[in-house]
Amino acid sequence: MASQTEALAATLEHSSAPGIPDRVTSKREEVPTEIPNARRRSKYRHVAAYHSITRHSSLSRESSVTTSFLGFRNLMVLVLVAMNLRLIIENFMKYGVLICIKCHDYRKQDIVLGLILSALVPCHLFVAYIVELTAAAAAKNTVGRQKKTDEEKERDQQVFRSDWHYTAFLHTVNATLCLAVTSYVVYFYIHHPGIGTICQMHAIIVWLKNCSYAFTNRDLRLAFLNPSAESGLPDIYASCPYPRNVTLENLAYFWMAPTLVYQPVYPRTESIRWSFVAKRLAEFGGLAVFIWLLSAQYAAPVLRNSIDKIAVMDIASILERVMKLSTISLIIWLAGFFALFQALLNALAEVMRFGDREFYTDWWNSSSLGTYWRSWNRPVYLFMKRHVYSPLVGRGWSPLAASGMVFALSAILHEMLVGIPTHNFIGVAFVGMMFQLPLIALTAPLEKMRDPLGKTIGNCIFWVSFCLVGQPLGALLYFFAWQAKYGSVSKMRP
Amino acid sequence: MASQTEALAATLEHSSAPGIPDRVTSKREEVPTEIPNARRRSKYRHVAAYHSITRHSSLSRESSVTTSFLGFRNLMVLVLVAMNLRLIIENFMKYGVLICIKCHDYRKQDIVLGLILSALVPCHLFVAYIVELTAAAAAKNTVGRQKKTDEEKERDQQVFRSDWHYTAFLHTVNATLCLAVTSYVVYFYIHHPGIGTICQMHAIIVWLKNCSYAFTNRDLRLAFLNPSAESGLPDIYASCPYPRNVTLENLAYFWMAPTLVYQPVYPRTESIRWSFVAKRLAEFGGLAVFIWLLSAQYAAPVLRNSIDKIAVMDIASILERVMKLSTISLIIWLAGFFALFQALLNALAEVMRFGDREFYTDWWNSSSLGTYWRSWNRPVYLFMKRHVYSPLVGRGWSPLAASGMVFALSAILHEMLVGIPTHNFIGVAFVGMMFQLPLIALTAPLEKMRDPLGKTIGNCIFWVSFCLVGQPLGALLYFFAWQAKYGSVSKMRP
Repeated sequence: MASQTEALAATLEHSSAPGIPDRVTSKREEVPTEIPNARRRSKYRHVAAYHSITRHSSLSRESSVTTSFLGFRNLMVLVLVAMNLRLIIENFMKYGVLICIKCHDYRKQDIVLGLILSALVPCHLFVAYIVELTAAAAAKNTVGRQKKTDEEKERDQQVFRSDWHYTAFLHTVNATLCLAVTSYVVYFYIHHPGIGTICQMHAIIVWLKNCSYAFTNRDLRLAFLNPSAESGLPDIYASCPYPRNVTLENLAYFWMAPTLVYQPVYPRTESIRWSFVAKRLAEFGGLAVFIWLLSAQYAAPVLRNSIDKIAVMDIASILERVMKLSTISLIIWLAGFFALFQALLNALAEVMRFGDREFYTDWWNSSSLGTYWRSWNRPVYLFMKRHVYSPLVGRGWSPLAASGMVFALSAILHEMLVGIPTHNFIGVAFVGMMFQLPLIALTAPLEKMRDPLGKTIGNCIFWVSFCLVGQPLGALLYFFAWQAKYGSVSKMRP
Repeated sequence: MASQTEALAATLEHSSAPGIPDRVTSKREEVPTEIPNARRRSKYRHVAAYHSITRHSSLSRESSVTTSFLGFRNLMVLVLVAMNLRLIIENFMKYGVLICIKCHDYRKQDIVLGLILSALVPCHLFVAYIVELTAAAAAKNTVGRQKKTDEEKERDQQVFRSDWHYTAFLHTVNATLCLAVTSYVVYFYIHHPGIGTICQMHAIIVWLKNCSYAFTNRDLRLAFLNPSAESGLPDIYASCPYPRNVTLENLAYFWMAPTLVYQPVYPRTESIRWSFVAKRLAEFGGLAVFIWLLSAQYAAPVLRNSIDKIAVMDIASILERVMKLSTISLIIWLAGFFALFQALLNALAEVMRFGDREFYTDWWNSSSLGTYWRSWNRPVYLFMKRHVYSPLVGRGWSPLAASGMVFALSAILHEMLVGIPTHNFIGVAFVGMMFQLPLIALTAPLEKMRDPLGKTIGNCIFWVSFCLVGQPLGALLYFFAWQAKYGSVSKMRP
């Protein structure tokens, strides 16, 4: 009761206005409760000058005080929560509970093929190991023979080059087979898009690791053959010099490590904190369930309701659908990002004692699309930079052409990742990726502006282009293509 | 084209990662484009150690870098815009354009009565002036006679007191008549709730000004009769000592000035900036149209659709309706606040050369309901503090009781302001105001917490209780009561 009294008293007593004299507010303390009524009455005067100085309203431009708008940030969060809570109630009143574990059907063939692919794909890494082992043996043989003359050196270089052509051919066949077989099986024999996506992603990851393994070992071998100053290797590799890194254990570590860039040696942590692993896995599991609930209960009805509108090209309705879908797809995207890049990759890194956990940087603050693509998916970015962009620029390509090449390769991989499991090469993912190039050019000047407004505009262009339009529109189009090919989703079931 | 090239190049070149050696990124500049092919090829090595140090993910707790989440603020704004844009499209597809200037019907009688009331209400201020003029004359008469003995002084005091009882009686009758007549006419003869609200608000404002004028002049008179140290008046009043302030001009200034607290003298500005006035009036006009559009196109259908749900007490649906209404009513409320307290009162103050423009402080950051009520409407707060709270505390009331009294008076005025023009005393506004007392007690401890989390929670409680639940629920209930009494709004028309 005491705190209540104080609180209510404070409501009317407190005054931060500098112009109000203390006489009024401190009146209470001056008046002992025991003095006679008459005297008490004569004390208070209704004369205080509450308006005693010239002041501006805090929202006026003239105001000298910088006004904080932190409260409006809280309001925004609350309005977002309220609006989405309302949509949840509306959704429930419209559809009831759509979530149903048993209803989710898949063919046995999909599972079996998926498991076979999961086992086959890593075998290509083993093949790459055999190839590298052979090449390393040849290299050791070359180094074994003492060479002095320039002529001999030149011959060694030629041997290395013809060896490399042979090795490169084997690697190319091996890596391409890995990707081609998986794509073929997923496209023609795995109907379920979820299982297909997992298989396809696995194959692409192993393909990228394969490429990195081949390229890196080639240049390690070259450095081994020409131990001159120019080819100085990073200090961190010193603990495992060239031919010693070509072991099955070293490759197995690269296979499981959360990176696409092969290094003989990685920074490692001291020990595995299993509680950390458990927490990250719990996060991943919780988010996976959350994403599944959102997809089944909210995204699926919106997608289904959009089909007729896309079919008749009703622009206002399509726009309305994209906007409705955008919030859901945004939440799914953010949850998915956190689940994969924060929870899963950190858990994997902890188990592997992999030290460099920078799987992403603060891409949400990106004030240009360029910064976004550099920061949201560091493993792929580092791969592209080390094995595509930098080599091309080193060969004399212009940075623009090299960037174009990176985005073209990325666009092909994106289309493979989405188009193959959904059995529709409609090219939306490809075009979406290629469309990043003009967007990057558009937002780059904004990022360089000193005015924070420019950065804010760049950040808004990023969010709108990427999350509020790009993703939901893409999802809508692939869903539409799926429905056009297979009819209603329910027909999927045998 | 040059900037495009740079931008795309930056996409892949830029790297803030401290661990990546410069060797790779600076390669391009080292390679002149004219050197032979063979040499160029041998330059780049796929061996850079991109993972060279141990780093944490920026969202991990271990991360030493403080991550900025400014981008998510931008995202929230965008999602809010997108969600509301979607609702606008949905609304348009459902209802078409509902706005119609000619359809808005009102009875001629309402207009005529409204105009008569507008003219009559200020007359009560004139009556108050006559009363004060008489009292001032009597006081001057008393002071004119030289008094020396304590007995004479005591007699003067008694004369003052009996005079005051007489003056107080006249003021009470005058002020009460002002409010009672307006309330009676609005309740029984002005059907249109908008016209009624304007008349009622005018009467309440003049009633408050009347009270402040009477109280302040009483105590100025007392100080005039006993010019002792205790009754020292604020310095600002010195330019216009007591009986000289009782002029028609002085009262007319108080009548028009944007304050409810009477002072013989106010801080004044040097001159009237008419461009400032024009800008503020343009803001007011624009916001008024905006509010009208919102009400007609968005709030009205939601209110109409809610009627059936309230009638059958379908809780889930009522909740859904309150949430849908909350966003609209919040926007209307914020626009209305800005239109009245920033635009209109500033324009009025500028015209009156009224110096103290602190009509509100940053109430949106309030971390307790108490702070909110102290800051959103300074004119009423200052009136309540000067003429209700402080005198009661001065008389020995506990701060809790005095606060209760203030909120009770405020609750009655709120109910009069809403219940009378809508012809339904359902008591929701009254209860809503009284409910502030426990909320103030609840949020006061949160405000005092040093942890910013406590303040954020307090701020959220304020927004939810006030803007997301309180206001829309109130509007819904008064609208429902109106419909129950008069049937559909369309029946209003003759």
